[in-house]
Amino acid sequence: MDLNEIRGQIDNIDAQLLKLFLDRMELSKGVAAYKKENNMPIFQGDREKQVLDRISSLSPEEHRSGARLLFTNIMDIGKSLQANQLHDSSLPQFPIAGDDTITGIKVACQGVSGANSEAACVRMFSEPSISFYESFEDVFKAVQREEVEYGLLPIQNSTAGSVMQTFDLMRRYSFYIHRTISIKIDYCLAVKKGTKFEDIVSVYSHEQALKQCSSFLNKNDGMMAIPYSNTAAAAKLVSESGIGNAALCSEECANIYGLDILKTNLQNSDDNYTRFICIKKNLSIVEDADIISVSLSIPNTPAALYRLLTKFAVGGLNLLRIESKPIASRNFDVIFYLDFAGSVKDESVAKLLVELEDDLSFFKFLGNYNEIQDGSL
Amino acid sequence: MDLNEIRGQIDNIDAQLLKLFLDRMELSKGVAAYKKENNMPIFQGDREKQVLDRISSLSPEEHRSGARLLFTNIMDIGKSLQANQLHDSSLPQFPIAGDDTITGIKVACQGVSGANSEAACVRMFSEPSISFYESFEDVFKAVQREEVEYGLLPIQNSTAGSVMQTFDLMRRYSFYIHRTISIKIDYCLAVKKGTKFEDIVSVYSHEQALKQCSSFLNKNDGMMAIPYSNTAAAAKLVSESGIGNAALCSEECANIYGLDILKTNLQNSDDNYTRFICIKKNLSIVEDADIISVSLSIPNTPAALYRLLTKFAVGGLNLLRIESKPIASRNFDVIFYLDFAGSVKDESVAKLLVELEDDLSFFKFLGNYNEIQDGSL
Repeated sequence: MDLNEIRGQIDNIDAQLLKLFLDRMELSKGVAAYKKENNMPIFQGDREKQVLDRISSLSPEEHRSGARLLFTNIMDIGKSLQANQLHDSSLPQFPIAGDDTITGIKVACQGVSGANSEAACVRMFSEPSISFYESFEDVFKAVQREEVEYGLLPIQNSTAGSVMQTFDLMRRYSFYIHRTISIKIDYCLAVKKGTKFEDIVSVYSHEQALKQCSSFLNKNDGMMAIPYSNTAAAAKLVSESGIGNAALCSEECANIYGLDILKTNLQNSDDNYTRFICIKKNLSIVEDADIISVSLSIPNTPAALYRLLTKFAVGGLNLLRIESKPIASRNFDVIFYLDFAGSVKDESVAKLLVELEDDLSFFKFLGNYNEIQDGSL
Repeated sequence: MDLNEIRGQIDNIDAQLLKLFLDRMELSKGVAAYKKENNMPIFQGDREKQVLDRISSLSPEEHRSGARLLFTNIMDIGKSLQANQLHDSSLPQFPIAGDDTITGIKVACQGVSGANSEAACVRMFSEPSISFYESFEDVFKAVQREEVEYGLLPIQNSTAGSVMQTFDLMRRYSFYIHRTISIKIDYCLAVKKGTKFEDIVSVYSHEQALKQCSSFLNKNDGMMAIPYSNTAAAAKLVSESGIGNAALCSEECANIYGLDILKTNLQNSDDNYTRFICIKKNLSIVEDADIISVSLSIPNTPAALYRLLTKFAVGGLNLLRIESKPIASRNFDVIFYLDFAGSVKDESVAKLLVELEDDLSFFKFLGNYNEIQDGSL
């Protein structure tokens, strides 16, 4: 047989397969209607096992795992359809966010004036009124006590990775993401007026910033890198101390503290981006929302992640990011953070969220928002 | 219709579906044979698009995305089967690791004596000969220059998260994982003899350790937490400085530097585990290997991760861990690190590795090894 002949036969089989699949889906709807009427759960593990065992017994060994996977998949697609039907009348309402383009909105940032969070905040809001707090958790507490409307914190850096502390706090506080912003961060070497490059003994900055500039620091091993609470605090320290100290910070920050800039673009990668999240206490959704974030745990069963992603794939939802974060425990149990493209205004998306909430032992909807792509800092 | 009747009909459909699926898989083998003979690639995007477009046109809107997903799945299962056939004669050879239970094996660690890596090393090897290097990268360089046989580095902590630098170095150096070890780490407050709790002004430790003990530090805000290069270096500093300083380090480390222990178990979580990887320059595989690590990038197409996981699911391979790490770039492009249970001695696993290497633009086999679960430190 040549390739076209074989493909003709495959097309023929596919048409029959499709017909049977569609028949099966219609029967699935009958099952869903029956379950709804009799108040039964969608997922029934014993029935699933029964179907798969039968499939295994009917399949030759060579194709057994493929066949089991296929029928797992068919049942998962069927379950998504059933969930779609069952939640028809019980969709949650998502409140619309108030106007956040007005001036003077109160926002909490960590650090001191000149910190990268401040710069991100100024780009997100129109003339915001920014309060600075010592720690990331203090920012969450300020939002909790409603001293501010929003809090702004770094969550990922393209060179140094995830900011675990922010992920951890998002898990402990049940807040929502209002918007996110991604900003390019250039570091410069900033000194007190009068300091020359050869005078520098110590370089202060936040540990993440030192990491992001490690190539420069390794090349200049006469300089000692000293981790400091944040880049702006390091700049402030340099402005108040003697000759011989330098800070790695943004040019903006160097200007705020009246420092001279000796070198620019010191980060290892030309594309050094940091992503910040803006958090709020109560759920509301901005008009142009197109990213959905959720956190969840998956059962400790074979192909559990795969089967979870089946639900997203059925909904045609494109996964943008997936991160697994360990929860402090012996077995490195993990929580997954997933971002996908979509809006809760879309009924199928809202139904998927309800389905996940019903199915999983831990599931948290973190928000539906828009990401601002900004230029350089 | 009652539930049993509907299920009877579904079972009937399933038997027909299975038969068609098995016929299709046999035809797939014919396609593979044809492609092999004519030196054609397994994956042909145009044919796949053709099949899916036809399925879409034959499906009612309600079931269209489900049907497309089903046929994507069927084709992916078919491709795994074809790959299995094509790679029949060209499987890679995996060299067996030499005896690593002999004493005196040379291993590189970062830091100074008393560091957690040293403790992990002593648990992994029998009386190893340990050399200390200043940075993580120096450990990699020592392995590169063959000054040592192995290098030992932390990779994940259950409280503070992934050690990005180790992931980054694993990407830049093409080394392999020899074994891993997971160790519980308890931190104590260690001081020079004569220092009392109320004398303490500064607490030195590695930033990750300070993070892991943040609750204790927050409660005692008269103490200033000062990040230091590593826990053992902090203990050494305290042993050489005056009254008023303390270190957060393991009890073992406090003993090495002759320090008094004022408090124990200061970490936030009782289950504070760190996982270390042991790296080597050349590929070899230990006898009891049962975990496989790979790093890879996935194409920027819908459901790409889902389709990748189809391959693992077909092989019945259980995914143990998945982490996505950004590569420094504008779009937060990511590399995935996957650990799954399995051995390359298993032919289907070896074939999957070859298939992934052929399919993906970036794929790296990081090793097949055994994880040691150790007790407390």
